[in-house]
Amino acid sequence: MRIIVDAFGGDNAPLEILKGCYDASKELGIDIVLAGNSEIIRKTASENNIDISAMEILEASEVITMEDEPTSVVKAKADSSMAVGLKALADGKADAFASAGNSGAVVVGATMIVKRIKGVKRVAFAPVMPKNKGFFMLADSGANVECRPEMINQFATMASCYVNKVMNIDKPRVGLANVGTEDHKGGPFQHECFALLKENKDINFIGNIEARDFPDDAADVIVCDGFTGNIITKLYEGVAMTLMGKIKGLFMKNLKTKLAAALILKDFKVLKKELDYNEYGGAPILGASKPVFKIHGSAKASTVKSALRLTKAYVESGIIDEIAEAVK
Amino acid sequence: MRIIVDAFGGDNAPLEILKGCYDASKELGIDIVLAGNSEIIRKTASENNIDISAMEILEASEVITMEDEPTSVVKAKADSSMAVGLKALADGKADAFASAGNSGAVVVGATMIVKRIKGVKRVAFAPVMPKNKGFFMLADSGANVECRPEMINQFATMASCYVNKVMNIDKPRVGLANVGTEDHKGGPFQHECFALLKENKDINFIGNIEARDFPDDAADVIVCDGFTGNIITKLYEGVAMTLMGKIKGLFMKNLKTKLAAALILKDFKVLKKELDYNEYGGAPILGASKPVFKIHGSAKASTVKSALRLTKAYVESGIIDEIAEAVK
Repeated sequence: MRIIVDAFGGDNAPLEILKGCYDASKELGIDIVLAGNSEIIRKTASENNIDISAMEILEASEVITMEDEPTSVVKAKADSSMAVGLKALADGKADAFASAGNSGAVVVGATMIVKRIKGVKRVAFAPVMPKNKGFFMLADSGANVECRPEMINQFATMASCYVNKVMNIDKPRVGLANVGTEDHKGGPFQHECFALLKENKDINFIGNIEARDFPDDAADVIVCDGFTGNIITKLYEGVAMTLMGKIKGLFMKNLKTKLAAALILKDFKVLKKELDYNEYGGAPILGASKPVFKIHGSAKASTVKSALRLTKAYVESGIIDEIAEAVK
Repeated sequence: MRIIVDAFGGDNAPLEILKGCYDASKELGIDIVLAGNSEIIRKTASENNIDISAMEILEASEVITMEDEPTSVVKAKADSSMAVGLKALADGKADAFASAGNSGAVVVGATMIVKRIKGVKRVAFAPVMPKNKGFFMLADSGANVECRPEMINQFATMASCYVNKVMNIDKPRVGLANVGTEDHKGGPFQHECFALLKENKDINFIGNIEARDFPDDAADVIVCDGFTGNIITKLYEGVAMTLMGKIKGLFMKNLKTKLAAALILKDFKVLKKELDYNEYGGAPILGASKPVFKIHGSAKASTVKSALRLTKAYVESGIIDEIAEAVK
């Protein structure tokens, strides 16, 4: 299997990307194609003793930054590592593409360069989020600020396929993000979504879910429009980070609390890891006609490796054919 | 000052409501009028040695439960403690009304019985939420699932008045909840809201705010439609509760962690209190023509007292006249 990786996407590129790719290629038995400036890639690898001799390089002179417009991937920066990588995937030169770069650009590139599966109205940005036990998938988390109910229904089908086949959850429970759990809750948009989801035979729809219950194992897949999904993802991270920061500050307060910290440090680290959504690597772009995976922007080598493991599973799952069949 | 309190609203009514009213009447020098079944009120007070001799009772035979439809306050349960209390406020028999009961019913009652300030398009349910330092006010948090941009603009004016006059924040920073911080972020709805907020001379608008930054002192007032606001409030609570639960579990794991817990217990309790939005008592119903305050549903006596302190400040602030002037 060949996976193209954007060597210049993310906060820690290219070094951590190269490290992660090396680890993944060894552990997962995949062939890595690095997209980016070959000179910088070779120099970084050599300076850090990373053996990239088994990896192919796909030359690309530019880099899409976090500040660039998402559309730059098809216009101003068509020679960027991201654009060149996506183009090569579209041309059949590999089985998948992964990038830790600008999320908006990955979404636009997946739609415009790789193209959607026939029948899919919009791609969904679908991160895997930690909860009390395990995780849930949120679709859409920001690819589409405005959605029509039939898009939400497709997000549910696509995310169910992914969670079932890639994350190995049997009959994933699908919930609609809403202001209450009763069937009639929400406005006209939620009512229309509810009606479509209820009739959808490809999913296990369990009804409306309140945001209070998202972290508490309420569902395996939660669907919503991209505006709401963006608020959910970012607030999740913000509240958890603020709280963990406060607790850290509390542990550092004085000798007594520092002693407490020392006693609990190991368990605390395990908890932090459980809650860290870097652990799940990132988010597939559901609905693209070939596997495109967005690695978390702040990914270090281990997260890059996790993401490539999921990308490999995404390819092997065959869910793109399954989604194509379901949306027909 | 006379404040009518719904003696039968909330998870811990009537006992904790009576206790909180007694404490508030002593500490704040306010006259309390209890709305509800006088027989049960007197029995509960006498069994628990709560001196309610200084409090008037407004007879009401029924109770609105959490399961009742919000509109029951004007229809099926017009003789409930909530409806009777709101009616007495509307009739000028007191200066304010507070209830820990069904939020939807409080919103409907504030709109239909007490009525809106002339010119106010919709009332906002505006809870005070804890953040890294202090708090922020969220408007609207669920009174209006669907909003027009001019409503969002009014929420900003009303919440600014409240935060300035009742919570004593000078020139409160107002932010629009959005998917990114740049001016052009979001869809047509956010663009229209942004344009109105930018032109609003009664507020200190600081632009778009990402959900990641809400808990990190990004603004003093955050405005959004009620669907988004409901998701924010409930997710905030859900993530914080799940995390605190996990940490509690971690402390109870073994002897070593229990020792750590003992060392840090006091500081941890302080943190929990800082993060507990019960501390801020609840949410004013902004835009009602007289002060209506929703006490947190799970309020115990101390929260009821905090809420009545804020209700008193709400009356004294004169912001209803100020809002009436601003929306003219």
